[in-house]
Amino acid sequence: MKKTIIENVTILTMNENRDIIKKGGLIIEDGRIKKIFKDPFNIGEYKDYEIIDGKEGILIPGFVNTHCHGSMVPFRTLADDCKDRLKKYLFPLEDKIVDENFVYIGAKYAIAEMLLAGVTTFCDMYYYEDFVAKAAEEMGIRGVLGETIVNFIAPDTDIAYGGIGYSKKFIEKWKNHNLITPAIAPHATYTNDKEHLIECHKIARENNVQMIMHLAEMDFEVKEIKEKYNMSPVEYLDSIGVLDENFIAAHCVLVNDKDIDILDKRKVSISHNMGANSKGAKGVAPVKEYRRRKMKVGLGTDGPMSGNTLDIITQMSLVGKIHKLFNEDRTLFPAIEILEMATIGGARVLNLQEKIGSIEVGKRADITIFETDSVNMQPIYDYYSLLVYSANPSNVSTVMVEGELLVKDKKLIKVSLKELKNAMDSLKGNIEEYIKSI
Amino acid sequence: MKKTIIENVTILTMNENRDIIKKGGLIIEDGRIKKIFKDPFNIGEYKDYEIIDGKEGILIPGFVNTHCHGSMVPFRTLADDCKDRLKKYLFPLEDKIVDENFVYIGAKYAIAEMLLAGVTTFCDMYYYEDFVAKAAEEMGIRGVLGETIVNFIAPDTDIAYGGIGYSKKFIEKWKNHNLITPAIAPHATYTNDKEHLIECHKIARENNVQMIMHLAEMDFEVKEIKEKYNMSPVEYLDSIGVLDENFIAAHCVLVNDKDIDILDKRKVSISHNMGANSKGAKGVAPVKEYRRRKMKVGLGTDGPMSGNTLDIITQMSLVGKIHKLFNEDRTLFPAIEILEMATIGGARVLNLQEKIGSIEVGKRADITIFETDSVNMQPIYDYYSLLVYSANPSNVSTVMVEGELLVKDKKLIKVSLKELKNAMDSLKGNIEEYIKSI
Repeated sequence: MKKTIIENVTILTMNENRDIIKKGGLIIEDGRIKKIFKDPFNIGEYKDYEIIDGKEGILIPGFVNTHCHGSMVPFRTLADDCKDRLKKYLFPLEDKIVDENFVYIGAKYAIAEMLLAGVTTFCDMYYYEDFVAKAAEEMGIRGVLGETIVNFIAPDTDIAYGGIGYSKKFIEKWKNHNLITPAIAPHATYTNDKEHLIECHKIARENNVQMIMHLAEMDFEVKEIKEKYNMSPVEYLDSIGVLDENFIAAHCVLVNDKDIDILDKRKVSISHNMGANSKGAKGVAPVKEYRRRKMKVGLGTDGPMSGNTLDIITQMSLVGKIHKLFNEDRTLFPAIEILEMATIGGARVLNLQEKIGSIEVGKRADITIFETDSVNMQPIYDYYSLLVYSANPSNVSTVMVEGELLVKDKKLIKVSLKELKNAMDSLKGNIEEYIKSI
Repeated sequence: MKKTIIENVTILTMNENRDIIKKGGLIIEDGRIKKIFKDPFNIGEYKDYEIIDGKEGILIPGFVNTHCHGSMVPFRTLADDCKDRLKKYLFPLEDKIVDENFVYIGAKYAIAEMLLAGVTTFCDMYYYEDFVAKAAEEMGIRGVLGETIVNFIAPDTDIAYGGIGYSKKFIEKWKNHNLITPAIAPHATYTNDKEHLIECHKIARENNVQMIMHLAEMDFEVKEIKEKYNMSPVEYLDSIGVLDENFIAAHCVLVNDKDIDILDKRKVSISHNMGANSKGAKGVAPVKEYRRRKMKVGLGTDGPMSGNTLDIITQMSLVGKIHKLFNEDRTLFPAIEILEMATIGGARVLNLQEKIGSIEVGKRADITIFETDSVNMQPIYDYYSLLVYSANPSNVSTVMVEGELLVKDKKLIKVSLKELKNAMDSLKGNIEEYIKSI
């Protein structure tokens, strides 16, 4: 049973009172926060504990990335700034290139990038998700993971909807894991028919797992569902009975007032992906209204081909700036609210708010510490402003998941980044060859 | 005469053809680029040159920050997310706190932050600009600097428009300096009257210096000028004859079609400050149209209380994402165009395009190298995408201005960051005391 003390930090607890502990620390035992203390603290009875010096850093609950396709990182910087790339570029590329090895290598690299940026929990949807789970377990990160289900022959299957069979086995295999929470992940309304969405929802209910889906993201999605059912994508999903408190809807950009009412009434979780939504010119989700209604909203990066970064710090800055701009209100979403969405808000989206998302006694020790030595981290009059408007991923010094130290002095402890990079380089030949051929 | 070779880099020249030299290097002599080479290269005749190993990094022309109030960095994280802060918060704070020592300490810290992020030239407008110039000279950065001129008693003067007298001396003192280019900087239309703006313009013309001004940034600015003159701010400035190719207009957000015609016709330089304009909910400048007309557009950070960062890398990401979003076009401003605004575009704004802004033989050796080892810097299929969408300031490894190495292995060479931080900390007491009193 690992016992650790973190000392010499300022703690932004993100508890209900949003308490800040200046100059304090944590006692961590058995993966959980046992005690929160304020200096001066008598270390006497804890002298056999491993001590981590926080070096006057800022300790927060680890970031939650509520939407991601991590294994796509080997494709990053390919086909940016071009039209219709999902269907014209991405699906064919995946069909040609993606296999178990690719997913495993990509997932490990993506997880490394998330951990180094202070992300301690991620929600992922991709192919061969069993290999993402394996990567997550090895790397020590927490994950809510679902196999992508589509109505065409995909990298993981020779038949349409092959992902459903995969999901059943996947859920069974991982359902009692400490770090991994399995889910079911039909890709979108335009890649799944009614019957299969209902089947997925049934599986989710029977296994008490979440259902992850892209929703109200694409203009062609809205058009297609309108033509087929004379409904919006949200109305359509509600009409077939799949929306509930276990539904994680990624994006929810193209919604009308009636849609928002439905999402609210059904207690749907919203993953807001500002980086990807802006880079892809998708629009600005009505997060102001979602939050006015106290709906569950967390932040996500989307895949590394869409947003190009896998950290939540970059998202925080974008969320603040773009929503202020669109709502013509510089007071909207003060920094503390944005950090909330990035931590406890994300935990609520993943139904993990009892376990993670704030620094409270009894919660899992999923922790991120920012150093305050770098040039961009001074001065500090407002901790929240500092993290939201000035910080970048390189300022994360220490990361812990379930009490296990994974990043120390800005370096990964359990794996070599160099080796992960070499593994990713081994995929380059195939990718380059395919790119040349199209 | 310093002689340096930089080797083992990929060079994004940003010359007219946008040539990329994969695996090459530079010969630098007397502060200028003497030769651009491609491997394999016989180093024989250059064996007495100091060699800098670029370690497979990406070499670009140093970033140009076209609008900044660097010395305000000691105020960073104060009063974010609140209304009317310029007049209610900022002007009183400056009146109480800002003196020569404050400006000098703030400038050094801000310059450190810019250099560490690969900014090699900055355009600054503040009080006691003589101390910004001194700081810039000591730190080795290139600057276009102008004393703020306002119609009230300001930190640097006991009389309204005292900045004009200061500017005359300042221009005289610095006009033949290698790194410092003096300018004249009336703050805005709402802080300067017609007669004084005309006087400033006369001084600019007589001394062949640029005139820097905030323009079409504030809603109350537009309203005031409309009420007073029944014109837009741009029309008004044109009507008094101050707009020309030596005019640097910061922001230019709140403009109409007629204004754009005028700015174009008068060959005005535009400093686009997306970070500050978004955080302050000011709006999105019509940069698409400015660029369609091939007007001079560079990127700026604005002051560190407005945008909170002083690097151009963060601006690049925001410019790409926000303009795509506002124009509903994901193909708008491909990454190469954004890097162009950040380098040669900025150089054009400052009328320095003959000296800096691209990697070409004969130009000054103002250079920034990105490392490619960090987790977010892989893989690389597109260099421009990588820098615009994935990089952050911590990826800058090496910076040189006028052939002088200023940042090496991500560390400042000439000064201690710790000492700069301690100096800034010495200002905190006064600031905190004043904050408590209001």
